[in-house]
Amino acid sequence: MMLLNIQTNNYMKFFISIYLLFFSVFIFSQDDEKVIKNIFDTTMTTSSSYELLDFLSNEIGHRLSGSLGAERAVEWGRSELSKIGFDKVWLQEVMVPKWVRGPKEFALIETQPGITFNVDLCALGGSVATPSVGIKSNVVEVKSFEELKILGKKEVDGKIVFFNRPMQPNLVSTFQAYGEAVDQRVNGAAEAIKYGAIGVIVRSMNLRLDDNPHTGTMSYGNLPPSKQIPAAAISTNAAEKLSKLLKITPNLKFLFRQQCKTYKDVKSYNVIAELKGSEFPDEIILVGGHLDSWDLGDGSHDDGAGIVQSMDIINIFNKINYKPKRTIRVVLFMNEENGLRGALKYAEISNKNKLNHIFALESDAGGFTPRGFSFSANNKNFELIKSWKYLFEPYLIQSFELGGSGADISPLNNGNNVLAGLRPDSQRYFDYHHTSIDTFDAINKRELELGAFSMASLVYLFDKYGIIK
Amino acid sequence: MMLLNIQTNNYMKFFISIYLLFFSVFIFSQDDEKVIKNIFDTTMTTSSSYELLDFLSNEIGHRLSGSLGAERAVEWGRSELSKIGFDKVWLQEVMVPKWVRGPKEFALIETQPGITFNVDLCALGGSVATPSVGIKSNVVEVKSFEELKILGKKEVDGKIVFFNRPMQPNLVSTFQAYGEAVDQRVNGAAEAIKYGAIGVIVRSMNLRLDDNPHTGTMSYGNLPPSKQIPAAAISTNAAEKLSKLLKITPNLKFLFRQQCKTYKDVKSYNVIAELKGSEFPDEIILVGGHLDSWDLGDGSHDDGAGIVQSMDIINIFNKINYKPKRTIRVVLFMNEENGLRGALKYAEISNKNKLNHIFALESDAGGFTPRGFSFSANNKNFELIKSWKYLFEPYLIQSFELGGSGADISPLNNGNNVLAGLRPDSQRYFDYHHTSIDTFDAINKRELELGAFSMASLVYLFDKYGIIK
Repeated sequence: MMLLNIQTNNYMKFFISIYLLFFSVFIFSQDDEKVIKNIFDTTMTTSSSYELLDFLSNEIGHRLSGSLGAERAVEWGRSELSKIGFDKVWLQEVMVPKWVRGPKEFALIETQPGITFNVDLCALGGSVATPSVGIKSNVVEVKSFEELKILGKKEVDGKIVFFNRPMQPNLVSTFQAYGEAVDQRVNGAAEAIKYGAIGVIVRSMNLRLDDNPHTGTMSYGNLPPSKQIPAAAISTNAAEKLSKLLKITPNLKFLFRQQCKTYKDVKSYNVIAELKGSEFPDEIILVGGHLDSWDLGDGSHDDGAGIVQSMDIINIFNKINYKPKRTIRVVLFMNEENGLRGALKYAEISNKNKLNHIFALESDAGGFTPRGFSFSANNKNFELIKSWKYLFEPYLIQSFELGGSGADISPLNNGNNVLAGLRPDSQRYFDYHHTSIDTFDAINKRELELGAFSMASLVYLFDKYGIIK
Repeated sequence: MMLLNIQTNNYMKFFISIYLLFFSVFIFSQDDEKVIKNIFDTTMTTSSSYELLDFLSNEIGHRLSGSLGAERAVEWGRSELSKIGFDKVWLQEVMVPKWVRGPKEFALIETQPGITFNVDLCALGGSVATPSVGIKSNVVEVKSFEELKILGKKEVDGKIVFFNRPMQPNLVSTFQAYGEAVDQRVNGAAEAIKYGAIGVIVRSMNLRLDDNPHTGTMSYGNLPPSKQIPAAAISTNAAEKLSKLLKITPNLKFLFRQQCKTYKDVKSYNVIAELKGSEFPDEIILVGGHLDSWDLGDGSHDDGAGIVQSMDIINIFNKINYKPKRTIRVVLFMNEENGLRGALKYAEISNKNKLNHIFALESDAGGFTPRGFSFSANNKNFELIKSWKYLFEPYLIQSFELGGSGADISPLNNGNNVLAGLRPDSQRYFDYHHTSIDTFDAINKRELELGAFSMASLVYLFDKYGIIK
């Protein structure tokens, strides 16, 4: 009997522990569910993201590095962040490139003297100008650098190279399709120069057929200015037309004129806001996006959305009366588009000061309905993160994947911390990306707010639980 | 030794069976993965959905039941389906209501004689007209039928009732928010009549603030024409303005004028196309949407998208050379919007002919990025369906939920079969629903095609595996 009693006692203890364990897990997750529901309700009913973006897009407009818009955006960012109740808001100096597009570009196809078709074209960021009368020459169309190499100097010398490999439609992630096509834009000029080309035109990085040319960064590598040739993008409709006309009239001429110019680097700033953590002030959680944009639209999706979503996080925490245990930093990075100088400067100074960023989250994939997050994390931490996924599923945030995070935060990767990128629905993103139609009217308020909600919820969880070291 | 041999033999057999089982499951699922990848590639590179919708939206336009547009859409549907290679395409006669909006409506708020504000207003479908000079009266604003009841005849008699309960922003499904607000539009007039109201205006079923009034069906219940009062929707911006002005000037007057009219029922048609199954011709799989639309835009999302996606299924099967084992029917239902007569007629004739619809799928929630499906199925079949979910996840089709299917197919529910509705992202749907901006330019080609792909893949699986009886 005695033995049985002891056994019973042990069983009892065992069951009580199990019971307490389940009970505490239950209480604990119930609590997270409630907090996240509270974040959702608060964001969807009181978020200031849309109003902030309205101002940034419509009152400031584009903010290419080195432009007046970028200067004004920095001041606006500092001023708005100062209203939210951070402990400290400051500007972090960084030298950035200054490239100026100049007057609107001009381009046409001439199938024979006097028969011309106007073309929608824009200079690529970083390109040199054409002579003031433009350049005019025959066109050689290729789909890849291999094809270009096979044609060689004999076929390419003195001509304009036309890169016309479309983004692949049969990839569900349009970012993957972008990644597989963008070499043409980034390195097309440097490749074409090898074979004597005098100019480069690239099919816009766009999955649909329309009339909007897409700008974006390009690089001449180490080539001296004397060897650089002008590079531009043409709209997808123009690319289709040019390709068709080339089949009929291989010796047609293409003319384009652009007056863009690179100036000396100028001073600019990352905007940083910090709220000290109550328990672990040395553990930093960073959330951000990039404040600069291209100069054709007003950068509402790229990356105004990410900026205002990041700025809204502490607003939301204040409204639900949540005091972070860890230090939260909101960083509006400068010069993601054509240099990444802000991100590199931020990482450099963080390293110098031995700052411990345990988690960094960037929103830089548009203001569309969030589908999930992409994480850069070790296995232990990814297991932890996956244990939170069920908290997001009621809100249709369903993808938690390993992969990239964001260009601005990736220099903070130290192998032990966690980086993440918000992953909105990507289907429409490249309709707008780097064009004149990336404007405020392309933003849906609810979709933008769902992104802010998702980000605030993830920051809340990392703040509460930290990461596994 | 012998015993051991026998044992070994048995073990061997056991392992071989297990191996074969796993191997066949592997082959089998590998095969489905390949077929679905093939459906994806084919749809995303060669789908005709977008081109079909371009014609339906831009060449035919709106197609409210009983209108010339509806007649033309029926002919177009028959003609296009006849090109695809069905065994049979036919029209199924059905009598439908004919309600005509008449000239553009007019409305204003008069805060005092001579001080007026124009208001964006449209008649609700099925409403009676106002007198030709319009009706003008004081306004009583309510959020619910309970509130209306409390005010009672004393406060309501002779006035215009203004239903102004917004759709709830803090629900991730905008359809749920719609379901919780739409009683105001559907039954508002019948309720207000009880207390002597002379007219009803309803805040549009829209989550954002804009200037587009949303039409939609309304009902007077069993009230005779002599008791019916005019009912209209005002835009959300107008609703906000009217509500604010009422706080300052409770005795302001509202005037509206509409000349809509209900005519006698007219003859129309469901369009049906059938491809006989090679193995189980008596088991019917139905896929469809509704061909009619409201009359303000061109019904591209509601439900042009569902129509062209459904029409594309057999096109896609033909391209991948897949021959269905079961009978596939594509049905373009008439009169979903204001009567459901097509759906009821289809079900009536199917029942009379003892047709066995094992599965029916409707797309009627917009042409946005598909997020998954909602199913009406018993537990056994839902388990089967869930076992296919992994096949869709690589394409970010992630929600397989029990719930409703589609208005047109729900009369086919017999308790044993499976019904499903495509569930696209719902965030933007009510920006367009039943308005003048539900037009072709609001459609994204890829999103539309991803819906067609999802539907074709699900139809393929039901065709291959059938349902559990």
